[in-house]
Amino acid sequence: MVEPSLHRPLLASEVPAWDFETEVAIVGFGATGACAAIEAVNAGAKVMLFERNSGSGGASGLSGGEIYIGGGGGTDAQRAAGFEDSTEDFIRYLKAAGGPCVDEGKCELYGREALNHYAWLQQQGVRYRGNYLPGKHIEPTDDSTLIWSGSEAAAPFCQMAKPAPRGHVIQHMGWGGGRPLVDTLEASARAKGVEVIVDARAVGLIEDAGRIAGLIVRIDNQNRFVRATRGVVLATGGFVMNDEMRRKYCPETFKINAPIGDKDDGSGILLGLGAGGEAIHMEQFFTTCPWTMPESHAYGVFVNRQGQRFINEDCYHGRVSRTAVDQPGDRVYLLLDNAHFVQLMDFARMSIAGTGDDWEEVERELEMPEGTLSATMAFYNKHAKLGSDPLFDKRAPILVPLDQGPFIALELNFQTSYFSFFTLGGLKTSPGAEVLNPEGKPIPGLFAAGRCTSGLPAWGHGYSSGMSLADCTFFGRQAGKGAAQA
Amino acid sequence: MVEPSLHRPLLASEVPAWDFETEVAIVGFGATGACAAIEAVNAGAKVMLFERNSGSGGASGLSGGEIYIGGGGGTDAQRAAGFEDSTEDFIRYLKAAGGPCVDEGKCELYGREALNHYAWLQQQGVRYRGNYLPGKHIEPTDDSTLIWSGSEAAAPFCQMAKPAPRGHVIQHMGWGGGRPLVDTLEASARAKGVEVIVDARAVGLIEDAGRIAGLIVRIDNQNRFVRATRGVVLATGGFVMNDEMRRKYCPETFKINAPIGDKDDGSGILLGLGAGGEAIHMEQFFTTCPWTMPESHAYGVFVNRQGQRFINEDCYHGRVSRTAVDQPGDRVYLLLDNAHFVQLMDFARMSIAGTGDDWEEVERELEMPEGTLSATMAFYNKHAKLGSDPLFDKRAPILVPLDQGPFIALELNFQTSYFSFFTLGGLKTSPGAEVLNPEGKPIPGLFAAGRCTSGLPAWGHGYSSGMSLADCTFFGRQAGKGAAQA
Repeated sequence: MVEPSLHRPLLASEVPAWDFETEVAIVGFGATGACAAIEAVNAGAKVMLFERNSGSGGASGLSGGEIYIGGGGGTDAQRAAGFEDSTEDFIRYLKAAGGPCVDEGKCELYGREALNHYAWLQQQGVRYRGNYLPGKHIEPTDDSTLIWSGSEAAAPFCQMAKPAPRGHVIQHMGWGGGRPLVDTLEASARAKGVEVIVDARAVGLIEDAGRIAGLIVRIDNQNRFVRATRGVVLATGGFVMNDEMRRKYCPETFKINAPIGDKDDGSGILLGLGAGGEAIHMEQFFTTCPWTMPESHAYGVFVNRQGQRFINEDCYHGRVSRTAVDQPGDRVYLLLDNAHFVQLMDFARMSIAGTGDDWEEVERELEMPEGTLSATMAFYNKHAKLGSDPLFDKRAPILVPLDQGPFIALELNFQTSYFSFFTLGGLKTSPGAEVLNPEGKPIPGLFAAGRCTSGLPAWGHGYSSGMSLADCTFFGRQAGKGAAQA
Repeated sequence: MVEPSLHRPLLASEVPAWDFETEVAIVGFGATGACAAIEAVNAGAKVMLFERNSGSGGASGLSGGEIYIGGGGGTDAQRAAGFEDSTEDFIRYLKAAGGPCVDEGKCELYGREALNHYAWLQQQGVRYRGNYLPGKHIEPTDDSTLIWSGSEAAAPFCQMAKPAPRGHVIQHMGWGGGRPLVDTLEASARAKGVEVIVDARAVGLIEDAGRIAGLIVRIDNQNRFVRATRGVVLATGGFVMNDEMRRKYCPETFKINAPIGDKDDGSGILLGLGAGGEAIHMEQFFTTCPWTMPESHAYGVFVNRQGQRFINEDCYHGRVSRTAVDQPGDRVYLLLDNAHFVQLMDFARMSIAGTGDDWEEVERELEMPEGTLSATMAFYNKHAKLGSDPLFDKRAPILVPLDQGPFIALELNFQTSYFSFFTLGGLKTSPGAEVLNPEGKPIPGLFAAGRCTSGLPAWGHGYSSGMSLADCTFFGRQAGKGAAQA
């Protein structure tokens, strides 16, 4: 009786019988798995894709469908909007966004190849309207292509690389472009003959003479043995839905409350570790509370419970949110004047914590000591009127004085407001998506991409929208190619 | 030709010949290894201890020799000084100090056993004078036993557990009690018949039928094979001296500059991982810049480059320093008045960044915008005069107004001042010091303790002096017992 384990591969000699035979086996049918499948077929391999749900999607399907693309002088959308985006600036931004966790090799490869990748996505049927939507958006509210989706124009990033908007979104009306993105990639994969087996959960890898040679999937409550003569691709997502792994590796996330993901239980990471891989930067996570909606709220100022500012609020909403979570205590406040406050979005679960005709009154309502929040805002306003933020280098056009009351303080509470989050740490892979062992050598036959790896979006404080799907789709392709050629 | 690897055990069947045979083999002769050896002998095992250096010491030998002990109504030194320390308060503090990374089982076991452990240390010959040295010390300046060595009396810890001083230091004149502590433990181990082999670096483990059954050591440039019929204990320290591991797991430490350790290259962690263990909380590190010396400097106030305070300065110097490293930019400032400034200690490599007759002048000298540092200090002084710190809850006696110039600002620069640091993440082990696999099951025959594991000092922001040596000595003992009984 074979007992599969995520934690150690089964020896091929122990397999009772092969239920499926393929050349490349892919685990997970989000954007990563779909792209891996397409490229593996393109490279001439027979491909089977196993998905534990009853259909494609994964965390990609829940996303905005935004892909971070630039360099090479710019995409059509960037150039049409007047943004020349050099490869050098693009790579510099990618590296800055990786912060202390950066994988320079991946940044350089993707930086050089992103325009080709954009063309490739379109060849798969992903449509882009090609236009630019100015302003501060989490996702386009219409079917526009290009938005600012990171901290490119904000300090310190704008001093490190010439800014350009790089968030490219599939043509799709409103939010939720991830679903049609995966649908399009799925259609391409199926048209190429990828065999998709759904309701099939990977529960173990199979090793043959030091090489990963297949996997075990659970179908209808039975173990099924898949021989993969060329390679296996892990495309299973992160571990945000696995509390035990979060406790071991990313316990800061228990400070916040809204994991986003699908079946992101870390199984791919565990499979890779069990096969001799290593997992890096496991403490890193993305988080955001959607405070820039309505857009006029982006003009607000953040203070912590001490009444101190802590970030230039013109950087990416997720960078602001991630830094908010670093603050002492259980909440931060977004301060707005009447001219910019519009209404509360229900889903953000922020609340009105205080109001006042002047900041002193707001300060009292928040039960902060006299001369804290009010002094912070007096200082901020004095300099904002002169067009500067000497403390955090927030810049125009978001930099405006908030000095005409009445005023309002919105509470972003780490436990009760909507602080969505997902994990960024995972298997260490080469730019070719090979799973690496601690000596830096590829584990023969094993590839991985997307959020079961540490990739382009390596650092929570540097995340920009579209970086994860850029990583998923591009390095998913490398994984598929690599496995087909293995 | 056998090629040993840290990353995977050699099969016993591949061993050409056994060079050494023992029941328990211990790797590393710091305090952890010494305590493991003593207990393994006490449990009736033949014990060999392998050390890569030419003598004992390790990071323990470089330390202050402070051990965090309390509970049970208090040690002799605690009780004599009027501190009743209940086991409940002691355990509550240990858990609070572990923060989001806490291992509750280890806190509870050590919390219950610490007084017995204190007696055991004395049985090995470790002498304690038994007296209490009041004040704020990094290590005792004389041969005193008991000092405040953590954040017990500071918020928020003092609200979570009744405070008591718990840093117990071996009787030894001045700093550097770690060396005599290890010497004493070494003498006990040798007297009991532990066979010590120095200049012997562990380069691999040996597995036999799913059980760790020995190790490979490098002696005189040759591989030597050690059979250990009962078990192997890893006591090799952390990974602060391994830049590649720091880059993968703890890259924030590149912000600071002074790794402290001996041969702490993470080899024990890698050996454990290669045997199927898992490493947790690898991003955690201790750091301190010795800013409380001279002691009067402990009365200072910290601000970041924005001129904001960021911590209650009455908590442990390492907690202040660790929080300092979280601040934006490359430095923080320690603000003092003339009454408290004494002199700069050379080894801390702080510098005088500004002086002034009032805080406005200091602010200008630091090139901070008008109304930042000066406003911070005006607010601080106003409340300190009334005995309160409404922002961070700093408390008496350290809470004093700094309002009589001249004033001075000392720069603590993350790159050029002495920010010593070491890593806290490591193998996941049971309270019995068994190395656990990702399923939480012990790896037969393999034990570990000290800084190659994640233990009592799990969280950089909660570290207190003596926690690491408490962990090393107590769980080193568990490892020795466990291996002898395996």
